[in-house]
Formats: sequence, structure tokens, C-alpha cells
Amino acid sequence: MTTRLWRTFALGAVLLASLAQARQPAVSAPAQRITKSGTVAAIAGPTASFTGRVRVDPLTAANESINASTAYVTFEPGARSAWHTHPQGQYLVVTAGAGLTQEWGKPLQQLSAGDVVWCPPGVKHWHGAAPTTALTHIAITGNQGGKSVQWEEKVGDEQYQSR
Amino acid sequence: MTTRLWRTFALGAVLLASLAQARQPAVSAPAQRITKSGTVAAIAGPTASFTGRVRVDPLTAANESINASTAYVTFEPGARSAWHTHPQGQYLVVTAGAGLTQEWGKPLQQLSAGDVVWCPPGVKHWHGAAPTTALTHIAITGNQGGKSVQWEEKVGDEQYQSR
Repeated sequence: MTTRLWRTFALGAVLLASLAQARQPAVSAPAQRITKSGTVAAIAGPTASFTGRVRVDPLTAANESINASTAYVTFEPGARSAWHTHPQGQYLVVTAGAGLTQEWGKPLQQLSAGDVVWCPPGVKHWHGAAPTTALTHIAITGNQGGKSVQWEEKVGDEQYQSR
Repeated sequence: MTTRLWRTFALGAVLLASLAQARQPAVSAPAQRITKSGTVAAIAGPTASFTGRVRVDPLTAANESINASTAYVTFEPGARSAWHTHPQGQYLVVTAGAGLTQEWGKPLQQLSAGDVVWCPPGVKHWHGAAPTTALTHIAITGNQGGKSVQWEEKVGDEQYQSR
């Protein structure tokens, strides 16, 4: 082959090698990841599971190491969840406001900023704002194979105002 | 036996049965539990693992259902953790202020309220306040057989001020 042909061949080989390298899956070491404030969309609490205006701000997902997800949940005055159970339980950390929670068959209980609730697996409960004040809590919800809540009937006005 | 003796015997049997019942362990149904604000003591961050003034306010414990604990951690200006790893990883949810975090061998990164950090298992990092502003985050820390952190060397002043 001429020198020119050799050069063309060598250039082709280098290009092919580069392509092969680029197609290999990136094997990156595990690294710390920061999700900046303002980059995760809020979710409106669906009317099938909530009464009134409820906003969910997702914080952290369950993963291979940690079997619970976390989110801020903000209930406008009068808003509340439907009755429900958690197959792997749930912690609530009240971060602002004042509201209510109730376990099936038991009296209403008041919640205010700084209170922490543990709801064991399978215990039927609801939680939400008080009639005239908003409530925000972080929900730390156990996750079993992607399943973290079993929704039941909604909390009617009479039940909500029963205290 | 006389009627009187029978009565005494019957009464004794009833008393013994009551005692036996009282001695049985109480089998109570799982119930929702509320820990009221102001009832859990704060813990000072130990000097072996932290530089400067750090306060830990415990929130929730790992249990049979949820394999992570949570706590508020507040760093006064200039305060920071030592370098460390988490065998099951850790999420940080910044709730107030502005501070810093760093992964081993990488540049400092700024944190402010609303940011969320995921630190995978085994990744060496530190986190804390900025030199002139305080930082509070919730730490959601994976827990493996009671072990959730492996402490390493402290972050010296030169390293902390290296940006």
C-alpha cells in the first residue's frame, strides 16, 4: 500500500476504536448527588384520596438501601386525607401549623409543629389540617415492593367535625 | 366439705385465676403513637465526630418496618461533620440556612434550604454550615444492624476554607 493508503487505514482504525469506546456503558463510581431547591414539581393530592386542597412536595425516594420515601404534605385549612393503612407503617414529622389525626375507633388527636407520629403497619388512620388552620408534615413512608398505602373511605364532614 | 368451706375454696380459686390473668403479658393491638413537641432531648454533636457547635434533634428511629432513622442536625456557622461514610447511604434534606458539603477528592458544593442530597453507601463525605451562616438539615440515614455511620478524620480549617 502507498503511504497515503496506510494513513487512511490508520485513521479509520482510530475512528472505529473511538466509536467502540463511546458505545461501552459508562461505569461510573457511586457519587453524591444534589437535587437543588425548586427543581422538583409539586403534586396536587388527588380527590380520590384527599378532601380539600392538599399539596405533596416529594423529597426522597425509596431505593436499594433505604426502604422508605419522604415528602412534605401540606393541607390547607379543612383538608385531610381519606382513611388509609400503610403496609410498612409511616412516620409523620409535623413541620408547620396545627391539625388533626385519628386512628379508626379512637378519638381525634391534635397535632402541631414539632409533633412526631408513628403509625404501625396496618393501622387505619387519617391526618390533615384543622378546620381553620393549615398543617404541613413530612411523611416518612415504608415501601414494600413499590406499595406504601392502601386507601379506604373518605373522611366525611360529620366525622371530621366530630370533636 | 361444709358450704362455708366450699365458698372459701371457690373464692380462692377466683383470686388465683385473677392473679394469673394479671401476670400474663399485655397483648395490645398496634396503635398510633404521638410524640409531642418538646419531649425529646437534644444531643450535642460529639467533638470526636464534629468541629464546632452541632446540635442533633432526634426525630424517628429505625424499626422493624423502616430501615432508616431521621434527625434534625443544626450546625452553627463554621461547624461541620468529620469525614465519614454511611454503610446504607444517607439523604440530607436542608430545611434552613446555607452550608457546604464535599465528597472525597471533589470540590466543595454549596447547600441551601430546599436542597436534597443523596450520599450512596460507602461514599466518603462531610457536611456542615458555611463559615458565616448556620445550616439545618434532616438526615435520613440507612441503618444496617444498628450501624449507620463510619467516622474518619476531621475536616481541618485549611480543608474547610479551601474554596
